[in-house]
Amino acid sequence: MIVQKYKDMLQGKSVIRQLSEFATARGKEIGYENVFDYSLGNPSVPVPQKFTDVMIDMLQHRNPMELHGYSQSLGIPAVRDKIAASLNARFGMNYTGNHIFMTTGAAGAIAHAVRCVSGPGDEILTFAPYFPEYNPYINLTGAALKVVPADTAAFQINFDAFEEMLTDRVAAVLINSPNNPSGTVYSSETLSRLAQIMSDRQRQYGHDIFLISDEPYREIVFEGVDSPYPSKFYDNTLSCYSFSKSLSLPGERIGYVAVNPACTDAELISAMCSQISRGTGHNCPPSIIQLAVAEVLDLTADLSVYETNMRILYKELTALGLECVKPGGTFYIFPKAPEEDAVAFCEKAKKYDLILVPSDTFGVKGYVRLAYCIDTEKVERSLEALRRLIKMEY
Amino acid sequence: MIVQKYKDMLQGKSVIRQLSEFATARGKEIGYENVFDYSLGNPSVPVPQKFTDVMIDMLQHRNPMELHGYSQSLGIPAVRDKIAASLNARFGMNYTGNHIFMTTGAAGAIAHAVRCVSGPGDEILTFAPYFPEYNPYINLTGAALKVVPADTAAFQINFDAFEEMLTDRVAAVLINSPNNPSGTVYSSETLSRLAQIMSDRQRQYGHDIFLISDEPYREIVFEGVDSPYPSKFYDNTLSCYSFSKSLSLPGERIGYVAVNPACTDAELISAMCSQISRGTGHNCPPSIIQLAVAEVLDLTADLSVYETNMRILYKELTALGLECVKPGGTFYIFPKAPEEDAVAFCEKAKKYDLILVPSDTFGVKGYVRLAYCIDTEKVERSLEALRRLIKMEY
Repeated sequence: MIVQKYKDMLQGKSVIRQLSEFATARGKEIGYENVFDYSLGNPSVPVPQKFTDVMIDMLQHRNPMELHGYSQSLGIPAVRDKIAASLNARFGMNYTGNHIFMTTGAAGAIAHAVRCVSGPGDEILTFAPYFPEYNPYINLTGAALKVVPADTAAFQINFDAFEEMLTDRVAAVLINSPNNPSGTVYSSETLSRLAQIMSDRQRQYGHDIFLISDEPYREIVFEGVDSPYPSKFYDNTLSCYSFSKSLSLPGERIGYVAVNPACTDAELISAMCSQISRGTGHNCPPSIIQLAVAEVLDLTADLSVYETNMRILYKELTALGLECVKPGGTFYIFPKAPEEDAVAFCEKAKKYDLILVPSDTFGVKGYVRLAYCIDTEKVERSLEALRRLIKMEY
Repeated sequence: MIVQKYKDMLQGKSVIRQLSEFATARGKEIGYENVFDYSLGNPSVPVPQKFTDVMIDMLQHRNPMELHGYSQSLGIPAVRDKIAASLNARFGMNYTGNHIFMTTGAAGAIAHAVRCVSGPGDEILTFAPYFPEYNPYINLTGAALKVVPADTAAFQINFDAFEEMLTDRVAAVLINSPNNPSGTVYSSETLSRLAQIMSDRQRQYGHDIFLISDEPYREIVFEGVDSPYPSKFYDNTLSCYSFSKSLSLPGERIGYVAVNPACTDAELISAMCSQISRGTGHNCPPSIIQLAVAEVLDLTADLSVYETNMRILYKELTALGLECVKPGGTFYIFPKAPEEDAVAFCEKAKKYDLILVPSDTFGVKGYVRLAYCIDTEKVERSLEALRRLIKMEY
C-alpha cells in the first residue's frame, strides 16, 4: 500500500515556494523586473569561468569511459585528497582523503551525517531561526529534531535554553553558521562556549554528542567579520558543505561531509557514509562534477554583490526604524517586522510588490527574511517600495 | 552514538569488488592486458558523441545561472516530458511528464520506488539469481527482501515457488529483465503469467501489490530476442531506469522512475518520490546531466560489442560441455560450474588469470557470472585459458 507519511507530506506546501510562485505570477502581470522578489535563496552570480573551462576541457580531451566511469562509493580518491588538502591549508586541520565523503550537496551531507550518529528515539537539537528542511532530513530517519528558542538579541545561541534541552537523549547538535535566515555568523566566543558545554555533557552522560555543522554559506562572509571554522572548536564535528552557493552551482548537487580526524571513530564514520548511501540509492555525486569542482576548490563566484546589497538594505531598514541584526555573511537579512504577526506584515508587503518571507517558517515569530541574491539595481529600486510599505502601513 | 547497523555493513565486503581488486593487483604483476577480468559490469564502449557535443554546447552558450540552477524536486519539467514522449513512442504507453521522477541512476529509482509502496513489516519478493545490492536498497527501509528460488532450467520464473511466497505480507515484487547476472530476458509468456498471478492476489488480499521493474539493461537486447516492456502487462508497475549502461554513463548517476498512468494513485506516487528525497538528501540529479540526456534519449552507445562477445563465449562454454542458458541481452553470461562449489571453481580459475564471479552472491549456487563488457580481442585471448581451466582441472 502507498506509504501514508510521504502522502501526508505533500499537503504541507512550502511557504517560501508559494511566495516564489506568487512572485512569478505577479511578474507575468507587471513584468518580473517590477517585482521585488526577495523569496528564494538562489545564487545570482555566474559560476567561475574556470569551472566551465575545466568541464569543456575534460569533455574534449579525456577518455569518456574514464571520465564518465563509476566513482568509488566514498567519492573519487584524488578529489577527496584535494578537498582535505584545501581544508587543511585554510583552517589548519589535518584531514586526509579518508575523512571526506562526497555528497549531493549539503542536503545529502546532512542526511548522511544524521544517519551515522542517530536513530529512532534520539534527539537532534538545532537553534532557531533554522532552515525548515532540517525537519524532513532528520524526522524521516526516526530521530526527532528539537528546536532551541532563538537568541533574538544577536542570533547567536540562547545558552540557557540550550543547556536545559541538552539531555541524555541528544545524539547530535546541528548548527548553521553563517546562518540562513538571520545572516549572522557564530563568533569564536559562541563556538567555544558551545564546545565546552557539549564536552561537559559528553563526560556527564558517558556517550558522544556529535556536532553537525551545516556550512553552505562558509565562503560568503563580509568584510571585518571573523568566521571561525566550527570543527576547530570541537573534535566530534561532522562538517557538511555544499558548493551550491560558493560556486553558484545549486543544480549540480555537489558537496561533502568532512569528519574531524580527532572525532570518535573518524575514518569509520566516513566509511559508514558509503553504507548509508547503499540504502538511500545515493551512490556518489556524478564523476564529472566531482572532477570539475576539484579544480576550483579555492575559487568562488564573484560574491561581492551580496555584501553590496546587504549594506544598502541594512542602512535602509534601520533608517526606517526596523530592528535588525547586521548580517555577517550569507545573502539573507532578517529584520524584525513592525507588527507582531510577520505573516500579516508580509501580506501587506505584497501590495507593494515586495516579496518577503515571514519568520514563522524558520521557527521564530515576528521577523521577515529578505534573500538579497538579486541585482543591486533591483535592490535600489525596491527601497522606495520598502519606504512606502513602512510609512503607509505603520 | 555511532549507528551499529551501518558499522556492521562494513564487514560484509562485496565479493565482486574483492575479485576486481584481485584482478587489478594481478594486473600489476603480469600486465592488466593479460588478466581476463570478467568481474565488473562496467560499460566498455564510449558515450555517444552527441552527448559530449550537447554538454559542451550548453557550457559554451547557455546562461550559467540557468544551466546550473536548481531543478524542480521531481526533475526538470521539459526533461520529464521528453522521457514520457520517448517511452510512449517506443512502448505504446501514455505517460505524461507527471509520471516521471528523475533519479540518480537505477539505485536511486529503486530506493524511491521501494519507499513509496512498502515499510517496516512488509515483504518484497525478488527472483534468484538477483543483483545483491537489492538487499541494502530494501532492508534499510525496514521492509524485508525475500528471494524466490531460481528457475534454473531457463532463468525465467519459478512460478510454483512464487505462488507459495506471494502472501498477504507482500507489498511489491521486484524484477530485473534483461537480467543481471543470467543475461536472460523475461518472455511475454512469463510477464503475462506473473501479471495474472499478481492481479488475482491483489483481488484476493484486497490491497495493491506493486511491480517494481529494474531495467538498466533495457537497451542491451540481442538479435531475434523479444524484450517486452513489463509495464504493458501490469498496471501497478513502477519502472526503474538508468542511463548507465545504454549511454555508458555509469558515473554520472542519471535515471528515472516511470509510474504507469493506470497505477493506483499514479501521479501521487511520482509526487511522493520528491518527499522521500527530502529525507534522503537526494534532491534531484544534476541539472546539466538531466538536460544533456534529454537530448539523446533515443540514442545508445554502440552496444554491438556485447553481442559479439556473448556469441564467442556462448559457443566456447557450450563446446567445453558447460550447461549455459543463452543470454538474450545484458553483458553477462551465467554458465553452470563444472563442480558443485562455484566458489572453489572460481578460485581455480584465478590460476589461469580468469576472474569469474561465483553465483552464491546472486542467491543461487553452482553457477558463475562472466561480465563480458571488455574488448573482443581480450575475450578471444581468454578462450585458451578457459579451455585449460576446464581440461586441466576437470
